[in-house]
Amino acid sequence: MQKPSLPRGTRDFGPETMSKRSYMFAIIKNVFEKFGFQPLETPSMENLEVLTGKYGDEGDQLIFKVLNSGNYLDGVDEDLLKKENTKKLTPKIAEKALRYDLTVPFARYVVMNKATLSFPFKRFQIQPVWRADRPQKGRYREFYQCDADVVGTDSLLCEWEAFQMIDEVLATFGLASFTIKFNHRAVLSAMSEYVGLKGREMDLCVAIDKLDKVGNEAVNNELSQKGFPHDTLKLLSPFFEEKQDLNTKITHLESLIGQFENGKRALADLSQLSKLLETKNLKKATLQLDCSLARGMGYYTGCIWEVKANQVSMGSICGGGRYDNLTGVFGLEGVSGVGFSFGVERIFDVLEELNLFPSDQSVSTQLLITSFDEESFLYALDLLDFFRSNNIKTELYPEPTKIKKQFTYADNRKIPFVLVIGSDEMSTGNLTVKNLKTGEQIKKTREEVLIALKNVTL
Amino acid sequence: MQKPSLPRGTRDFGPETMSKRSYMFAIIKNVFEKFGFQPLETPSMENLEVLTGKYGDEGDQLIFKVLNSGNYLDGVDEDLLKKENTKKLTPKIAEKALRYDLTVPFARYVVMNKATLSFPFKRFQIQPVWRADRPQKGRYREFYQCDADVVGTDSLLCEWEAFQMIDEVLATFGLASFTIKFNHRAVLSAMSEYVGLKGREMDLCVAIDKLDKVGNEAVNNELSQKGFPHDTLKLLSPFFEEKQDLNTKITHLESLIGQFENGKRALADLSQLSKLLETKNLKKATLQLDCSLARGMGYYTGCIWEVKANQVSMGSICGGGRYDNLTGVFGLEGVSGVGFSFGVERIFDVLEELNLFPSDQSVSTQLLITSFDEESFLYALDLLDFFRSNNIKTELYPEPTKIKKQFTYADNRKIPFVLVIGSDEMSTGNLTVKNLKTGEQIKKTREEVLIALKNVTL
Repeated sequence: MQKPSLPRGTRDFGPETMSKRSYMFAIIKNVFEKFGFQPLETPSMENLEVLTGKYGDEGDQLIFKVLNSGNYLDGVDEDLLKKENTKKLTPKIAEKALRYDLTVPFARYVVMNKATLSFPFKRFQIQPVWRADRPQKGRYREFYQCDADVVGTDSLLCEWEAFQMIDEVLATFGLASFTIKFNHRAVLSAMSEYVGLKGREMDLCVAIDKLDKVGNEAVNNELSQKGFPHDTLKLLSPFFEEKQDLNTKITHLESLIGQFENGKRALADLSQLSKLLETKNLKKATLQLDCSLARGMGYYTGCIWEVKANQVSMGSICGGGRYDNLTGVFGLEGVSGVGFSFGVERIFDVLEELNLFPSDQSVSTQLLITSFDEESFLYALDLLDFFRSNNIKTELYPEPTKIKKQFTYADNRKIPFVLVIGSDEMSTGNLTVKNLKTGEQIKKTREEVLIALKNVTL
Repeated sequence: MQKPSLPRGTRDFGPETMSKRSYMFAIIKNVFEKFGFQPLETPSMENLEVLTGKYGDEGDQLIFKVLNSGNYLDGVDEDLLKKENTKKLTPKIAEKALRYDLTVPFARYVVMNKATLSFPFKRFQIQPVWRADRPQKGRYREFYQCDADVVGTDSLLCEWEAFQMIDEVLATFGLASFTIKFNHRAVLSAMSEYVGLKGREMDLCVAIDKLDKVGNEAVNNELSQKGFPHDTLKLLSPFFEEKQDLNTKITHLESLIGQFENGKRALADLSQLSKLLETKNLKKATLQLDCSLARGMGYYTGCIWEVKANQVSMGSICGGGRYDNLTGVFGLEGVSGVGFSFGVERIFDVLEELNLFPSDQSVSTQLLITSFDEESFLYALDLLDFFRSNNIKTELYPEPTKIKKQFTYADNRKIPFVLVIGSDEMSTGNLTVKNLKTGEQIKKTREEVLIALKNVTL
């Protein structure tokens, strides 16, 4: 006899959590669709070679591999069956792997379906991903990602629409204050040139990306070791000055990097974006051009952004950016796109912490019908059908038993209304309905009860 | 440069397929919730020992195992690293596995959460499962299951509500004719006793379950080999006689097996069920007590059923039954329950074949706004926001370009309405809107266009 358990870093989502997650996903999906994004789902398993080499060496280690079915050692060279050779052995005995993110499968999908897709192609995807990371608070081995991407256009409308979608989703969730920090990869390239190291923007990005976590000194040290000047951050401090508005900041950047090719490219995009931003006020988001924002992913080439909720202490809850060549690795060059991702697991925690989930989300069943004997049970069947036919989520306690037990069930399930059938009710047709929250108890006909339930006030 | 591909037996679900699948799942979810079922999701990976031994030897072979992360050969006995020892090696190097169905994870969930759940516990679960089966037409290695179960009650209301849910879901899909065939495992036990082999019902079930596929002779042969009398099917033919109605059939069975304990149990349940069936007419389903129905699963102990669509040639599209001891294997005895499953992959094919998916399911975006230069593009932004604020799924083609190209995009995406902005429109505020289906083109104000779009007639 086994005592069952869950794999580390995985979770069951019970009814209450599911209601909250569904609420979250429904709002996001609704906004994505309003902006013309279409749903896509890709398989959980990809061929290992599709995933390998896309996430760096560390990422490759974290990909969950799926053992070949049948006799997986058949034909495997004996030399490989040694501890020191597992890196070579793995692709022989595990040709499939669980997806690590939604971006690479999306790129694979675009390449495989390029002949039939209409570009610009806008898709969203809400699915779990798996990473063999060490589990810790807020970090799971199976978690959902929630991505939207447009590929096949250079238009900055994509960036602007991404900001609007983020604003609308988070405002709908009830977040009162959040900041979209954005930057441009070409600003970072120009910054590298500014300190005299043209072409070294990746090193700069990798170091600056850690600024929040490790602080100035550590970043300066890392940069020095990589051949950047002493105290690079100080040299770059003009870039980090806050300005009163976006256009002032752009003018300031003009004076710093306007002479570089990369600077010109960044400033053209930022000016164009600024023009778009002026056409509409966002609901709740604050926009901030932050030249210290770098983002980890190697594939970004244009605008990049991250979102922070201002009322809680929590990492970024959303991020994205433009890439010039996501599909290049699969042989399709020149497909520029913009993608972003809601960190739904973190957003869930934020909404919990701020108590922003609607209180009625855990209510599924609205009415429980009780019975005390065979006769009232059969009488109840007709009522059950009446309420369900009128789209009221209704249950009949499945057997006549002690009324107390049936009320306890309603309590535990947070069913707000309980209908008690007695001999009186069966002869008059007047039903006794109790509101479990207020304790109020009233007699009404079934039609009156229905109207009351539809208005959710009894 | 790789040419990417998909693992065998897996599929991408592009936008059109996704719309159809979402339509299907939304209807099923809606009915489940109306009947008081609550959503549950379990992790894709389970500990291997949770799954092993639950699906028979053949099933164990078909479970996808997930390779341990890190150096999985560390500490593994060298003797095991041989082709002939992979059965013993597997649990050492792959401690996790992908779920094979939704039933075992559900049982595991109930056992792990028994202290906090309210019984009867009613849950539904719509998630993919994975099987290392040989892929063929209609059989995939990743596919969705869609289950509803009640545990913690013996009431036959559960069976009756399952029939009603099946009826409502399939009727809502537009299926004009389908049959719910049902039986009782105790009828099969009594049949075994009837031919003189008390206690041999599992052998009888396994053989009879294949009747549809292999025919009478093969079933008789299998039974003979297992020690059943010559031509057992003939001996059992009184059970297979059709009767004009359920009660007549029950009376007939009474005369055949009324003297056996198992017969008494079956007849008591069937009579009680018959009483419930009389309280309401189903919408479209035909109910048929069919004593040749056996169902493969070993864990069923009470009523069992399967559903066939009558207009297509296709295996059963739904099945279920009562089990007395699903959680026993995890140490929780005496939890009786009823569960059933919609075969959503097959139902999808049925709806496709009968052309029952609503034709507007593939339409996501309703309106495309076009522009021909920078000025009209900026003018369009305000319109874009106007329609989206009024919940019209709207896109602006992301850059001003040839109108023909923008119309082609709308065509390919099946966007029904296109708004053309010219200098005339910008000065008068009257918009030109074209209905791509009818070719009709009209001038209206934005408010008039909105009203027209809301009524989906222009």
